[in-house]
Amino acid sequence: MGSLTLLVTLAASVLAGRPTLHADEGMWTFDNPPLALLKAQYGFTPTSEWLNHLRMSTVRINDGGTGSFVSPTGLVLTNHHVALGQLEKMSTAAHNYARDGFYAKRRGDEMKCPDIELNVLVSSANVTSRIVAAAPAGAAASAALEARQRAIAAVEKESLAATGLRSDVVSLYQGSEYWLYRYTVYTDVRIVFAPEQQVAFFGGDPDNFTYPRYDLDFALFRVYENNAPVANHEYLRWNTAGATTGDLVFVSGNPGSTDRLDTVAELETQRDLIYPISLAVLKRRIAALRAFGARGPEQLRQATGLVFDLENALKAETGEYQGLRDQALFAKRVADEAAFRDKVRANPQWLAKYGSAWQVIAGAEQARRSVYVPSRFQALRGSSLAGLALNLVQYATEKAKPDADRLDGFHDAQVPQLEQALYSPAPIYKEYEEALLTDALQESLAKLGASDPFIVAAFHGRPVADVVHQAMTGTSLGDPAARRALVASGAAGVAASTDPLVVLARAVDPFVRRNTKLLDAKVESVEEPAADRIGQARFAVYGHNAYPDATFTPRLSFGTVKGYPMNGTMAPSRTTFYGLYDRSLGFDGKAPFDLPPRVAAGRDKVDLSTPLDFVTSNDIIGGNSGSPVVNRQGELVGLIFDGNIESLVGRFVYSDETNRAVAVHSAAIIEALKKLYDAGALADEMMGAPAGR
Amino acid sequence: MGSLTLLVTLAASVLAGRPTLHADEGMWTFDNPPLALLKAQYGFTPTSEWLNHLRMSTVRINDGGTGSFVSPTGLVLTNHHVALGQLEKMSTAAHNYARDGFYAKRRGDEMKCPDIELNVLVSSANVTSRIVAAAPAGAAASAALEARQRAIAAVEKESLAATGLRSDVVSLYQGSEYWLYRYTVYTDVRIVFAPEQQVAFFGGDPDNFTYPRYDLDFALFRVYENNAPVANHEYLRWNTAGATTGDLVFVSGNPGSTDRLDTVAELETQRDLIYPISLAVLKRRIAALRAFGARGPEQLRQATGLVFDLENALKAETGEYQGLRDQALFAKRVADEAAFRDKVRANPQWLAKYGSAWQVIAGAEQARRSVYVPSRFQALRGSSLAGLALNLVQYATEKAKPDADRLDGFHDAQVPQLEQALYSPAPIYKEYEEALLTDALQESLAKLGASDPFIVAAFHGRPVADVVHQAMTGTSLGDPAARRALVASGAAGVAASTDPLVVLARAVDPFVRRNTKLLDAKVESVEEPAADRIGQARFAVYGHNAYPDATFTPRLSFGTVKGYPMNGTMAPSRTTFYGLYDRSLGFDGKAPFDLPPRVAAGRDKVDLSTPLDFVTSNDIIGGNSGSPVVNRQGELVGLIFDGNIESLVGRFVYSDETNRAVAVHSAAIIEALKKLYDAGALADEMMGAPAGR
Repeated sequence: MGSLTLLVTLAASVLAGRPTLHADEGMWTFDNPPLALLKAQYGFTPTSEWLNHLRMSTVRINDGGTGSFVSPTGLVLTNHHVALGQLEKMSTAAHNYARDGFYAKRRGDEMKCPDIELNVLVSSANVTSRIVAAAPAGAAASAALEARQRAIAAVEKESLAATGLRSDVVSLYQGSEYWLYRYTVYTDVRIVFAPEQQVAFFGGDPDNFTYPRYDLDFALFRVYENNAPVANHEYLRWNTAGATTGDLVFVSGNPGSTDRLDTVAELETQRDLIYPISLAVLKRRIAALRAFGARGPEQLRQATGLVFDLENALKAETGEYQGLRDQALFAKRVADEAAFRDKVRANPQWLAKYGSAWQVIAGAEQARRSVYVPSRFQALRGSSLAGLALNLVQYATEKAKPDADRLDGFHDAQVPQLEQALYSPAPIYKEYEEALLTDALQESLAKLGASDPFIVAAFHGRPVADVVHQAMTGTSLGDPAARRALVASGAAGVAASTDPLVVLARAVDPFVRRNTKLLDAKVESVEEPAADRIGQARFAVYGHNAYPDATFTPRLSFGTVKGYPMNGTMAPSRTTFYGLYDRSLGFDGKAPFDLPPRVAAGRDKVDLSTPLDFVTSNDIIGGNSGSPVVNRQGELVGLIFDGNIESLVGRFVYSDETNRAVAVHSAAIIEALKKLYDAGALADEMMGAPAGR
Repeated sequence: MGSLTLLVTLAASVLAGRPTLHADEGMWTFDNPPLALLKAQYGFTPTSEWLNHLRMSTVRINDGGTGSFVSPTGLVLTNHHVALGQLEKMSTAAHNYARDGFYAKRRGDEMKCPDIELNVLVSSANVTSRIVAAAPAGAAASAALEARQRAIAAVEKESLAATGLRSDVVSLYQGSEYWLYRYTVYTDVRIVFAPEQQVAFFGGDPDNFTYPRYDLDFALFRVYENNAPVANHEYLRWNTAGATTGDLVFVSGNPGSTDRLDTVAELETQRDLIYPISLAVLKRRIAALRAFGARGPEQLRQATGLVFDLENALKAETGEYQGLRDQALFAKRVADEAAFRDKVRANPQWLAKYGSAWQVIAGAEQARRSVYVPSRFQALRGSSLAGLALNLVQYATEKAKPDADRLDGFHDAQVPQLEQALYSPAPIYKEYEEALLTDALQESLAKLGASDPFIVAAFHGRPVADVVHQAMTGTSLGDPAARRALVASGAAGVAASTDPLVVLARAVDPFVRRNTKLLDAKVESVEEPAADRIGQARFAVYGHNAYPDATFTPRLSFGTVKGYPMNGTMAPSRTTFYGLYDRSLGFDGKAPFDLPPRVAAGRDKVDLSTPLDFVTSNDIIGGNSGSPVVNRQGELVGLIFDGNIESLVGRFVYSDETNRAVAVHSAAIIEALKKLYDAGALADEMMGAPAGR
């Protein structure tokens, strides 16, 4: 609220022609770019061609990040840490591509990723009226929610059938708008290049979410169609000079989630209930993974990727939680909401239409508090194989139902993504899955107590470790063929299965369904229309010049390359290769500040003054990893890979002064490919590509 | 209090043989080194020879810093910023040694500093009983204070006469102990080498008091006697390998002032009254200097040094003030004092002797609040020439009195230092002095009001600027000979003088005398014995294993070379020349991150991996600038030049976790002399010096 108030006030003054403070806030949808702000603050007006080209050159990656086409033959640039999941799935005890890197010198060596999906947003349409009309006037909250869910599934299914494109309905502005997004889908994606993880993630967990940074966090995929590199028309031209201090730059990507429009009541639940539990879960899970990794080198390899993900999450959520506990920040959110509500109260029409919405949400948040713990811990958590098992059990039942009646996630329009995940050939390590599931279910036992019906149904009084050991050693679901067979056997087959992991999942399934229904009935169905009313009130009070909370869909942000005040001094706008060697030596070359041998030996090969990483005031968040940074000409000048520690409160409030996106500089990628990795051909492919479109 | 409690508890447990936390707190006097702590924590016991050698190799510099002998022919290492004042006094419009550096390739080129004094502590003796006995039992507070002041002057005068050594009585442990310190004095000190200020102070005010740092903040003096380099026996051997991570290191220096033993009532006065005024004065003075510097390049040169000093003070005091306003920190001091007083109350004897002391100080602090503003602003401030004028006027009167009756600062034992300052040949820039005095007196007018008797007496209703302009343009005191003549003319001469600056000083003198008397009568004479009682109570409750607050006298601190948690990540234990070039490029080489041409061009000459700066957990504060860092062998491994931003609260509380001293590495000095400055002979002189003693 605070941020939006600031933003909209500013936008309004821009429109009124008054001089304004500089503010780079916003993750804007491509259908509503901040043209007035850009013109007023930077004297720049992107054309629709410029915007379309950028959007169509950007890809969303189902592993939770973003990428961009950088050649007309399907080359996609993203972060090493976005590619990491696939690199791990391709690695074995003998070849650790995640740790040691990968480079396919010839096309034929490019290696297929087991279960990645890339999306390009090709069109979008506002379908609000159809979704809203689906709920009959005067319907009860639960019935209305169901009606909207059915309508969404129907729109998605129709669109998929009509266009063959992935079709997702996304709810924006707290449900005040629904949009149908259609994406091209690529699933034959091959890894072309990745550096060693230690230089991509130099500084490890300590340096994560901080700056100055010295990371070569990039990787290159190539998209294939019909077993040949895709001939894509849209791609970003490479600018090796890259971004420099003071430049206006844009980030095109898929920010995952923000809570800037949440009410104070929702934030209080987050602060008082959800974050404390999430942080405890993360810490426990990391400890379990470390214990598993200590069993041996192969176990360590298997655990490394998830440790990375969870430490990343722990650091991010710790920063967010500290933001919520920052009394000044919270007081500002409270004051902003009070000011907003005062404006609503001051207009009798608004008061009648919107006035009660905050109270309704506050009530629903009380309900959320009562159902949160069971809904979180009555589940098969921690292990991806156990998660698959539950999804398989549910899918076997759901697929027999009419599309509109299914649980979310099992609709026809969602089947391609669902089946890619369910039938992925990625390796399963049962010892690893057993360790994770045991820990998670022991945590559930501790949280819920031995007499909780979920615990009784799942374990029948037996020790958690025994049940999980039996399930993991006895299951055949490690084999994708067995998963396909289970789904094919339908509800009856699932009911008859003696696979011990299926038996466990079958016992858990009713609890998960019940909790989803409870949450829908008591919380979501109540909050959705209230949030929608608040969204409409915001439009009424502050106007339509706004951006919605992040939803892992394509967004545009703008900003400037610039340093910021940090810990008593200034952080520079960029770092160089000089700094990489300085920081490593400063820690005596000890992990996580060690350098891979090739990089250590390369200190006399690279031009040390080459820019390495840089910061911009662009407004980004998790999901923007791998996003291209482009200049006014739409040329690629950098690659987002992180935010600074000061940006973690950005989930709730954006601060122009200290919030910074951290990017790899385009020059660093070229320098590294040429001087460190003997991969000049790849650099030439990107730099030499002819003008796009 | 908090810190001492921690420390003494720790020391006690060390003595009891229990394992302890690591804690490197303390600025210890050389007569009471922390032997038990060192043995318990580091397994190291310095011999008395080791301690004496270190103390005798260390020099105090009257410009407010420390240095150390590093060759048997009088070479003294200190910071560039400690030498800066002398460099400026030696500079002219044609030769800016402060900015451009200085190197005397031949002995004969070594250039004499105009008014520096170096002191080496050669002996110390506890004179508490004599000072305390001077005040007759039952004397009124004011009379007792005067009696102690007379006794101190007498001890100093006797000692000077007996030994020819500078003799200072210093009050330690809040007046619970008085020590006579005797120093060898050197005043023929010549500048040998200084780098450009921009590499000594790379990063300027933003980087000041922060880390990681990349500063070559060193300079070399040579001490002369009888026009030849002094043949000193005590000097530190140079260790070019220098300090490395985890090393135990010692700092020998002269920390200026701490408030760790102050009562809560004293801290409250600081927090509520003194810091807000001091910060406002500093900001105003910096603005006046900048305005003066904007008049032209020569004015800019004249103003640069004081801007440096005042910005340094502003940043330091801002950090200290924030520490006082940190509620958690202040609450800890309150709780520690309460716990201390509880222990005193629990023992009837202690209660009777010490119990009322805190209340007495709280009362005196109320009195301080009532006299602080006039005593601060009824004075000739801002201009050093105006300060000289007042001292000359006072000296002419005081020197005729019996020694014991004189104002402090004018006793026989203090005359050498006084006359060095009064008759310094350092250049006086009248336009500059006029600008500063005008600003300071206009500030006094604003603070005191036009009807304040001081304002009336000083200006007689005329505009401040007119009076100051007349005084500065009309005075002959810019000439040292005129100053000598004025003193020689005695009280009568001063009374008859028509020199307009003397006239102004004469008008101000009675106010300064009156305010000093008031402060002595209402505050100092009351607080001194109460503080003494608290000091004795502390010995009684916590034992004698303690260090006194800093007093700009020789102290020893110990610690470890190590990084620390910083802004979400870790700061390294050291930086290298790689980092210097990285940080400069990160700011596009713009001031204050620009590099002198010689340093910029030297990037391919120096071994970039050479350590540049490093941090240690040693407990230091302002006055330690230029202090040698030595290893267990007593060899010089570094040169203190700063503390990190987290150390600024160290005035009140030391934190082991984040408080760090920042030092130039010994290897960096050698590398710079040899590779950047063509001064290999100087490096060889230091490295090749035979074993000391």
